Amino acid sequence: MKKEVMAKALPSEGKGVKVFFAEFVNEDYVFGYISRLIYGESGLQNIYILENKFWGRLLFINNNLQFSSRDEFIYHEALVHIPIQSAPEGYIKKVLICGGGDFGAAREVLKYPYVEEVVIVDIDPRIPKLIKEYFPELLPEDPNDPRLTLITEDAYVLVDKFLREGRTFDLVIVDSTDPDIGDEANLQELSHALFGVDFHQKLLKICPQGIIVQQCGTPFTMKNILLGVYKIYREVYPQKEIYIYRANVPSFGSDNAYIMRCPFKDPQRPKGKELDNTLYYNFEIHEASFALPKFWKEALKECE
Amino acid sequence: MKKEVMAKALPSEGKGVKVFFAEFVNEDYVFGYISRLIYGESGLQNIYILENKFWGRLLFINNNLQFSSRDEFIYHEALVHIPIQSAPEGYIKKVLICGGGDFGAAREVLKYPYVEEVVIVDIDPRIPKLIKEYFPELLPEDPNDPRLTLITEDAYVLVDKFLREGRTFDLVIVDSTDPDIGDEANLQELSHALFGVDFHQKLLKICPQGIIVQQCGTPFTMKNILLGVYKIYREVYPQKEIYIYRANVPSFGSDNAYIMRCPFKDPQRPKGKELDNTLYYNFEIHEASFALPKFWKEALKECE
Repeated sequence: MKKEVMAKALPSEGKGVKVFFAEFVNEDYVFGYISRLIYGESGLQNIYILENKFWGRLLFINNNLQFSSRDEFIYHEALVHIPIQSAPEGYIKKVLICGGGDFGAAREVLKYPYVEEVVIVDIDPRIPKLIKEYFPELLPEDPNDPRLTLITEDAYVLVDKFLREGRTFDLVIVDSTDPDIGDEANLQELSHALFGVDFHQKLLKICPQGIIVQQCGTPFTMKNILLGVYKIYREVYPQKEIYIYRANVPSFGSDNAYIMRCPFKDPQRPKGKELDNTLYYNFEIHEASFALPKFWKEALKECE
Repeated sequence: MKKEVMAKALPSEGKGVKVFFAEFVNEDYVFGYISRLIYGESGLQNIYILENKFWGRLLFINNNLQFSSRDEFIYHEALVHIPIQSAPEGYIKKVLICGGGDFGAAREVLKYPYVEEVVIVDIDPRIPKLIKEYFPELLPEDPNDPRLTLITEDAYVLVDKFLREGRTFDLVIVDSTDPDIGDEANLQELSHALFGVDFHQKLLKICPQGIIVQQCGTPFTMKNILLGVYKIYREVYPQKEIYIYRANVPSFGSDNAYIMRCPFKDPQRPKGKELDNTLYYNFEIHEASFALPKFWKEALKECE
């Protein structure tokens, strides 16, 4: 498995409307893409797909970049391999992915042969369809892997149902769009319900002995998400089981944060075997991901 | 020392021409700043200073961002504290900074009381003047620190002179603009001479027992710089003394690379005391900086 990811321009197929697409990363600061707009649709969520010489294809939901085909592997490998390798080898058998209808997280989870069952629950039925058409590289190695189930439903509702049924999981991954924390007047994101104390109280019940990981955006440009989720974690989980780690996803502009409830000792030390089929993740990255810059630590201290 | 660096908009003073300034980071991909253009001048190098709500002030040389006032501390702390803390405590007494007329690296070096002498050699006399006017926060804590000398000269020429005079240093920092490696038809950057085998052969002579560190840009968007400098280092220094590390400087978009010749054992382990007056650097970041993603390692292997 070899993939050219550093500094190589990707070919554009020349279809779609040529646009200058600007994503507002912060006030008066944009990432601009001279691109073909090859898919656009409003509805439950606003979805756009661009094709760009450098990034390949880019998926936007509600005008926020979800991933580029050039570097999505970093985001997804950090989201998945760090939690799985934090648990004793072979422990993670049943996995629930809340959001993640792009299949990227499931693709990584299914690389572990001891994983028996993966459920993706995504609210928007268009995402999996668009992935199959525009981003087939995000699909699992075996797209018909019998271990994988996709459910179109609000994750909040499905978790309630699983709770009533007494189903449990060893790993829950919250892989959603960035929420609207801190902007009460403008709660457009469907993911909002996945960033709350009550949701995590339910997750703790369906995953009492396992790992619960959530992506928290890029704190340098949107600090409120990491700090908001950290407060939720502190309310629901014991402090000694809460860990924050990070990964640099170049298309996001600055380090992405992840937060994890991990009941196992020393998650900084990977417990299993190192996989051959990753592009970003290795054991030295695993250990290093938990090191936080001084100014992150000081911002987090404000929540304590 | 407290500085708000995460997700807070900075005020604009409202002077200068209002522009949309686009920096091409790669083909068809730009960082766009809705900003006041508060200083602009052509000449030896093209220099622009913007004022932006999110980033504060930004310095561009030849249309490449050098730093923003919001996150320059990350770039400079990684450039300086990792090498100094890799040497036995108190070892680094004499420091040469090639480029670095913005004072940011000198500011960090001078935080160590055992440093006796710092020489900055920068080719462009306008940079130190502009810093004093527009970026005073980059100056050393004591702007008249008697340990500091600024020389306006081509670093290549000055190193030759030091060589003839038999002067030696314990640490050499190459803190220049990104070079034009790999684009022979378009060698505009004055820093070009600082990215060559012959320059490093001279550096090894004026710093025979010390550390020689060079900034290498952001490999994800400009791989050729890190790989080019790695080849130079391999030609001049023993392989077992060559180390690569990284830091995420958000305004650069992806991790910045640094390369270091370090003759001391285990540079991953910091040797001195942890300073109070840093914002990014701490000992856990020091150790983590040397962990490289798998795809960096594979790109580097191509040079071996």
